[in-house]
Amino acid sequence: MNRTISDVKLEECRKRIRSQLDSVVDFWLKYSHDTVDGGFFTCLGRDGSVYDKQKYVWLQGRQVWMYCRLYRTMDRFHKPEILVAAKAGGEFLRKFARVSRDSGKWKCAFCLTSDGKAVKVQRTIFSECFYIMAMDELSRVTGDKDMQLEAEQMMEQLIYWVQVDSSGLGRPQLPGDVPTNSMAVPMMLLCLVQQLTEGRGQDVVQKYKEVEQWCVQQILHHVQRAGTAILENVSVDGTELPGCSGRVQNPGHALEAGWFLLQYSAERGDEKIQETAINKFMELPFQCGWDEKHGGLFYFLDVDGHCPTQLEWSMKLWWPHCEALIAFLMAYSQTKKPELLERFFQVYDYTFTHFPDAQSGGWFGYLTQEGKVALDFIGGPFKGFFHVPRCLYMCERILDDLLANKDRTV
Amino acid sequence: MNRTISDVKLEECRKRIRSQLDSVVDFWLKYSHDTVDGGFFTCLGRDGSVYDKQKYVWLQGRQVWMYCRLYRTMDRFHKPEILVAAKAGGEFLRKFARVSRDSGKWKCAFCLTSDGKAVKVQRTIFSECFYIMAMDELSRVTGDKDMQLEAEQMMEQLIYWVQVDSSGLGRPQLPGDVPTNSMAVPMMLLCLVQQLTEGRGQDVVQKYKEVEQWCVQQILHHVQRAGTAILENVSVDGTELPGCSGRVQNPGHALEAGWFLLQYSAERGDEKIQETAINKFMELPFQCGWDEKHGGLFYFLDVDGHCPTQLEWSMKLWWPHCEALIAFLMAYSQTKKPELLERFFQVYDYTFTHFPDAQSGGWFGYLTQEGKVALDFIGGPFKGFFHVPRCLYMCERILDDLLANKDRTV
Repeated sequence: MNRTISDVKLEECRKRIRSQLDSVVDFWLKYSHDTVDGGFFTCLGRDGSVYDKQKYVWLQGRQVWMYCRLYRTMDRFHKPEILVAAKAGGEFLRKFARVSRDSGKWKCAFCLTSDGKAVKVQRTIFSECFYIMAMDELSRVTGDKDMQLEAEQMMEQLIYWVQVDSSGLGRPQLPGDVPTNSMAVPMMLLCLVQQLTEGRGQDVVQKYKEVEQWCVQQILHHVQRAGTAILENVSVDGTELPGCSGRVQNPGHALEAGWFLLQYSAERGDEKIQETAINKFMELPFQCGWDEKHGGLFYFLDVDGHCPTQLEWSMKLWWPHCEALIAFLMAYSQTKKPELLERFFQVYDYTFTHFPDAQSGGWFGYLTQEGKVALDFIGGPFKGFFHVPRCLYMCERILDDLLANKDRTV
Repeated sequence: MNRTISDVKLEECRKRIRSQLDSVVDFWLKYSHDTVDGGFFTCLGRDGSVYDKQKYVWLQGRQVWMYCRLYRTMDRFHKPEILVAAKAGGEFLRKFARVSRDSGKWKCAFCLTSDGKAVKVQRTIFSECFYIMAMDELSRVTGDKDMQLEAEQMMEQLIYWVQVDSSGLGRPQLPGDVPTNSMAVPMMLLCLVQQLTEGRGQDVVQKYKEVEQWCVQQILHHVQRAGTAILENVSVDGTELPGCSGRVQNPGHALEAGWFLLQYSAERGDEKIQETAINKFMELPFQCGWDEKHGGLFYFLDVDGHCPTQLEWSMKLWWPHCEALIAFLMAYSQTKKPELLERFFQVYDYTFTHFPDAQSGGWFGYLTQEGKVALDFIGGPFKGFFHVPRCLYMCERILDDLLANKDRTV
């Protein structure tokens, strides 16, 4: 094997990513488990102290999923304590996440008290999405068929809410509220289809084939302005919406959708989707989203250059950087195009010099535009054990493949 | 009259405040009126261009109120174009703001399309609050008794929602959702009582006497930690709530409540409330909220020094500074204590070097912690024609009184 400069850097990356994954897992294993009421604390300071005990259903589901995925697919995390924690999290979710309301038996709360009482219910599908991810992945580790069935039943409900009738979500139908295709919805549904079908039989794959196609089409509708921009919200028939909502760009979301599309294209050998994923869902958000002056990816932008109305638009958040790392490394591993590896290194350098916190072993989540830590906690109401470990886990695996493959041309 | 240094500075202040008020009014008169569909655009760039046409009911109501108040009480704004605009805004509100739903005939939308179709309804009372403010003040200029009656009827509904049964607001009752006394609610209700009763007969004053007392008591419950902190959310029986929500401080809100209490105490000659307003609702938020390093007031803080979870916690927003200016100047005018005038000057210097935009004549709304403009528009979904002109208007009037009064001891 002819070792190039890139090889050396990729080796260094893998080493650092591997050690970061270990340290991040350690932090959350040590501090986030509620051994009294079950489930996970996510509001964690740098010293691991719990500064708020509320339990966020998105984050409970994501942590169960991540633990199970690590346990199931990475030898060094195939440890009893991870399995025990994942099961305890799953039990907490099954016991408390679902609220019985007019909206039917599958609606989940957004936020619970420490001991599981519903505090807030969102009129969206995302708590349910992460519940499904958790149950499906947990069923793979435990072999619990009921749990797998539960995930699929809730998925049926989600598809119904999204494709047929959303009134069960509890949002009043208002005459001025134009039906919108928000990137998050088909993206999350596509992610769930990939989760539910991975490695399963043709019956399951067939069951979700139609909805998967629909998700991909809905995601592609976000390519707008004659192919020059990815817009976060479009009309249900795929045209641009008026005003700020129609012009908003969320580079992190576009990049995340990009690697979901890459996974989809890889399964099918669909080169056209691969090309769109890379040229549209990765290159465009990177070009508009990268801050040339201070580095890092902006959170929101307006396609016409107006100032976004989101107060945090110019902040650098951890998760878009995590998604960008996965996206560019996956794109490189599929195509071996050197410019994609350069993008990966560019994001990698910014990310690893700004987000990891050597003191705690976890990552910061929120920086100012200039790259200063703006919120100094490791976990919060929207930052749990998910984007960071998923990114590190996926990048480590892709790097393992890349470095094991001696036919590389770079 | 013996002119002191303070007199000279107060004269300068008045001159600048007066000219800023003129220029801010000019900007909004020139750019915010929708002459096609009625009502006001509030998403306005520095050049006055409308970057989004949605109409926010809070901001519609506030603009009607502000126009009427200026028209009614300041000679130089007693101009037909201001009255015409106020009436057109009131008409738009009456025609479109209220949504007929299960929640009864008084529930208002939060956001409307340009031509008045409801886009979003909040499950709170604030759209209704600003509707009432608008109708009452407009009825004072036009003499329309029906409109005054409408304001009072909606006020009855608000009091019922707040004091008796909030289910009409549409928020589901959840077992973990502890009933909370949020500063904004009694503060807004007190503001409305002051609006509805000002200069009106004893029958109206008597009608709202009990609810006014209740508001003051509810506001005073926010003095916590043995009188050392103002907390934004407390339990309904006036104790501290657990977690982030219980620890959050909003200095701008506390200062605003402070001057509402000062107005209340002045009407009654209640020195105890005056003292509490100044020592607790002004001094405490100023001490914890002022950024010693960069100047300006933080948006949110945690009383125990944890990092707030609001992404914008360290930003400097225009409205807390507006409220602080009114609070300290009013407190000084009532007490003549020089330290209160010093506070006023401190806030004044920061405010006037950071927020006014010489180019447009309007004010910026959102700065980074370091004082850089973070969002460069003049109006947005939450920034209309209200806090800036209300502050300039009130400060100008207080300064008029102060400078006309030769018995001053400073």
